[in-house]
Amino acid sequence: MAKQERGTRSKQAILAAAAEVFDLRGYDAASTNEILARSGLTRGALYHHFHSKESIAAALFEAHSGALVAPERSTKLQSIIDLTFAFAAQLQRDPVLRASVRLAVEKTSFPRPANTPYEQSTEVIHELLDQARLQGETLPGLDLSDATTVIIGAFTGLQAMSLVYTEREDLPERLGAMWRLLLPGLVTPGLIGTLRVTPPPAAVVADDRARAEAAAAAS
Amino acid sequence: MAKQERGTRSKQAILAAAAEVFDLRGYDAASTNEILARSGLTRGALYHHFHSKESIAAALFEAHSGALVAPERSTKLQSIIDLTFAFAAQLQRDPVLRASVRLAVEKTSFPRPANTPYEQSTEVIHELLDQARLQGETLPGLDLSDATTVIIGAFTGLQAMSLVYTEREDLPERLGAMWRLLLPGLVTPGLIGTLRVTPPPAAVVADDRARAEAAAAAS
Repeated sequence: MAKQERGTRSKQAILAAAAEVFDLRGYDAASTNEILARSGLTRGALYHHFHSKESIAAALFEAHSGALVAPERSTKLQSIIDLTFAFAAQLQRDPVLRASVRLAVEKTSFPRPANTPYEQSTEVIHELLDQARLQGETLPGLDLSDATTVIIGAFTGLQAMSLVYTEREDLPERLGAMWRLLLPGLVTPGLIGTLRVTPPPAAVVADDRARAEAAAAAS
Repeated sequence: MAKQERGTRSKQAILAAAAEVFDLRGYDAASTNEILARSGLTRGALYHHFHSKESIAAALFEAHSGALVAPERSTKLQSIIDLTFAFAAQLQRDPVLRASVRLAVEKTSFPRPANTPYEQSTEVIHELLDQARLQGETLPGLDLSDATTVIIGAFTGLQAMSLVYTEREDLPERLGAMWRLLLPGLVTPGLIGTLRVTPPPAAVVADDRARAEAAAAAS
């Protein structure tokens, strides 16, 4: 194995171990000792990649933006809805995203970098809402900043409740309820009945994934 | 000072100190040593009232229900809206409520008692929504359990965002945005324009407080 490849692998091992520890304990109670023990690497290897617990947490934040790529839909509101379902599905299976959400939501001694998950989500949702507005999907006079804040706030709180009650197993149902309640305040009445507020069918998810991978390979 | 009064005072001092420490550090990073140091009491006094960190946290949860008394309004939706504004105002000034919310929202090693703040809030909001339904305020066919979950989830997430961004200073504005967006999915169109989605005027808040104190004294 080439030296560079070994380096990438050990960095990934540290991030995976750190994600589990941050997800489990939160930032302040997490220790680099436990991260080291879980990663199976030496302290030297850890400090080769990250000079502090803080820099590991910052690296986990960067992974967040990868989960914020909206699937292509002709109706932009459907893109937003399906982005939330895709994000929820990834939260259920990916400890790195879970750790990033926990680091973002909790108030800790972690000094937040400028571009936190809240800012990343705000940018993505606001842009999609603006496209929806241009396509005539949104209610006239809708305040897009307010709408963005409420969508992200509601998602944040519902995933926190779902975590406490069911380890996020019921998150898709909670999201469905969120969209049924929010849509009448967001979109034109005629559009509501055409939007799906349940997770996309498996075939659609597979298409989305293939397209995202092709886009990533091309860039 | 009578012995009983001294006991109540030292218990209150412990709870106030614990609230600050839990609010600042979260459950797992909080230590009884720091709680003791802040309270200025002896370890013996602490263990006289509470046998563990867990039992202190459970006592803070109980304080939560006091913040969930809805102000009386002829329109029940206005009661719910004003309850959220009153809760937000108390969150801004009361470390005990802040600590209780942090303990409720975060996933920690704290074994939750059966009646958590989520359950308390769910009971109160669901009951008020049911009264609103009987008064003909809600949309026909509204699922009250879904509506309750989304209101509590959205509040939970928006206060978490407001905490990170402004130490909860902008929470009333965020709540206003939440209600403007949620109301069209909750209530009959004619009612929307009659509801106030800003914090109640000071005179109304003073009336609410006087009524709550009278009710507490009578019970």
